[in-house]
Amino acid sequence: MSAGGVGSVRTERVVLFTEDEPLVLESGAALAPVEVAYESYGRLDASASNAVLVCPALTGDAHAAGHHGDPARRGWWDTMIGPGRAIDTDRFFVVCADLLGGCRGSTGPSSVDPATGRAYGLRFPLLSVRDLVAVHRALAARLRIQRLHAVLGGSLGGMQALQWALDRPGEVERAVMICASARLSAQNIAFSTVARSAITDDPDFQGGDYHGTGRRPDLGLRIARMTAHITYLSEEGMQLKFGRRTRAPDGRPPGTLDPEFEVEHYLRHQGDTFLQRFDALSYLYLTRTMDYFEPFGAGAPDLGRVTTRMRAISFDSDWRFGSEHSRHMVDVLGEAGVEIDHVEISSPWGHDSFLLDLPDYHRVVTEALTLPVRSHVR
Amino acid sequence: MSAGGVGSVRTERVVLFTEDEPLVLESGAALAPVEVAYESYGRLDASASNAVLVCPALTGDAHAAGHHGDPARRGWWDTMIGPGRAIDTDRFFVVCADLLGGCRGSTGPSSVDPATGRAYGLRFPLLSVRDLVAVHRALAARLRIQRLHAVLGGSLGGMQALQWALDRPGEVERAVMICASARLSAQNIAFSTVARSAITDDPDFQGGDYHGTGRRPDLGLRIARMTAHITYLSEEGMQLKFGRRTRAPDGRPPGTLDPEFEVEHYLRHQGDTFLQRFDALSYLYLTRTMDYFEPFGAGAPDLGRVTTRMRAISFDSDWRFGSEHSRHMVDVLGEAGVEIDHVEISSPWGHDSFLLDLPDYHRVVTEALTLPVRSHVR
Repeated sequence: MSAGGVGSVRTERVVLFTEDEPLVLESGAALAPVEVAYESYGRLDASASNAVLVCPALTGDAHAAGHHGDPARRGWWDTMIGPGRAIDTDRFFVVCADLLGGCRGSTGPSSVDPATGRAYGLRFPLLSVRDLVAVHRALAARLRIQRLHAVLGGSLGGMQALQWALDRPGEVERAVMICASARLSAQNIAFSTVARSAITDDPDFQGGDYHGTGRRPDLGLRIARMTAHITYLSEEGMQLKFGRRTRAPDGRPPGTLDPEFEVEHYLRHQGDTFLQRFDALSYLYLTRTMDYFEPFGAGAPDLGRVTTRMRAISFDSDWRFGSEHSRHMVDVLGEAGVEIDHVEISSPWGHDSFLLDLPDYHRVVTEALTLPVRSHVR
Repeated sequence: MSAGGVGSVRTERVVLFTEDEPLVLESGAALAPVEVAYESYGRLDASASNAVLVCPALTGDAHAAGHHGDPARRGWWDTMIGPGRAIDTDRFFVVCADLLGGCRGSTGPSSVDPATGRAYGLRFPLLSVRDLVAVHRALAARLRIQRLHAVLGGSLGGMQALQWALDRPGEVERAVMICASARLSAQNIAFSTVARSAITDDPDFQGGDYHGTGRRPDLGLRIARMTAHITYLSEEGMQLKFGRRTRAPDGRPPGTLDPEFEVEHYLRHQGDTFLQRFDALSYLYLTRTMDYFEPFGAGAPDLGRVTTRMRAISFDSDWRFGSEHSRHMVDVLGEAGVEIDHVEISSPWGHDSFLLDLPDYHRVVTEALTLPVRSHVR
């Protein structure tokens, strides 16, 4: 990682769909208004040809790089994005938007429903990855970007990059899917349903209408996050990081039911801090979007027409969306004649590796942004 | 599996420790009374030399084989135990006792504390695997068994077999540890702490004093069970069993936040039925017993004196206590000169395999019960 990085940045907000021109979702439902929070780094060149769109994962947000005043607290992909970094802002205009359905500035199930004057709650419509992409596309259009040098992201972010390229190859020169999946496994869905059960069973969930009551399903959301965190780290990584070390509170000898192993303190801390930045309804909706993502299933576009240059990147210790998920994408798309390759990176840190400053990984991302592409017919 | 099996059986109850002669735990705490629920199958021979003690796992109980009136509802290891079965009751006298700390007839944290007249709750002392074994030993003595032909069990059951053989090799001719561990990994403990957090954070837990209030931490216990179930099945087994098949309630098309994938219905059902037979406090206590189990750590006996013939059995798709846990036991004990071998069984069904009717597995258990042993000096 080079010194410096992106400096102070601001999150912008823009209304992309209004009641006059609502967002029509894949389900047919109409949604308005749709506001989006986004950030950008670097400068768009005169021909608007150097734009790179970064798609967040499940709990990411618009704040991918730089800081909001405190240089010690930086965006979630700050080690990846910046002057001279893997996604070089001296060269690229990088845009990152909070997801539709999220809770960090973009419209989601905790936004106010204009029809009722209160939060949507469970009246918010279900979303597909295509719907998330529709909002990214509208943002790009608003920024006068017609064609992207690249779209990329990790996990759910990679799913958006994939869907966009499949549906609109003319708009996406390069798509990079990092530890993504084109089809969650039964085990993936199992973890997802445990998280949702924890949230919806929490009495403070109140059928989704918890906003304004002073009570939120914190119990459920904390458990959801703690469980998910286990799947983000590999068994090996967890062993390296924590082993069986204990640290009992107040210096007393360990041997109670309270958290005492380091891994217990860590998970508890992750659960607690998550409550301060994420919303239970968004967690429900966006995990469900992932469960149902199946871009090669019913409603798939003609893969033979996909001209986007693609790369799948996976990590050998990832057991959430491991290399077999990337290989599945590459098998299906390669078979259809799409130009796609797969790079597996060695890392002990599991799924979370995509957020880490790993030189081999960053080099492969940089390389992906310079892969030669076919000339596009729009 | 041969036809028939053990017929109708009854769970017996016996008080093994009283206030005059309490159970002194490894921690030094005294516990009384200690009552134990147990079952037995087959007949003890005249020289009391054919006893096989089966140790239950975390959520097992005394009812290992046969039925309590309804032949369709049979004990948890019924396919393993019976006339002509892998643990042959025509030959062996098989005993299985609910665990100390459990909730199925033996004394545990939901039993009445004679000092207060109400359930112990969190005032119940923490237990070690050695404490669980102490109660099994007292039961064996009560049944006039001085030496066991074999002790065996799966998961936490195997841990008891191991500890017993290490501490009292003269009492145990053969010990069979099936998908057990002598040291939980950070990931194992992580799953355990999520389960405990779900229970203790549940407002209905009421600091452990929920008995008699009409409210129980069902939310937490259900989540604990659902999460644990994911770790009991392998990714492959789950994919074979459920894949991405959906079944929406009421025949409506899928596409909501409610359980719709088959794996979601399955986990929910597992969670719900568990509430009818298990207690949240026992879950807390016994998972903690497993976390702290480290028989080769501080306080380990002289392994060079262990004369028990041992076998570790593991399943290749088990990712809870996989083959590496068995190999660790075999490495440490083999190094110390203990007669131990390890058999890995191929099965796609993960940790749960130890409960299943798998011919290769059952054959290896039968064989383990006939392994030649050294003559013991008591």
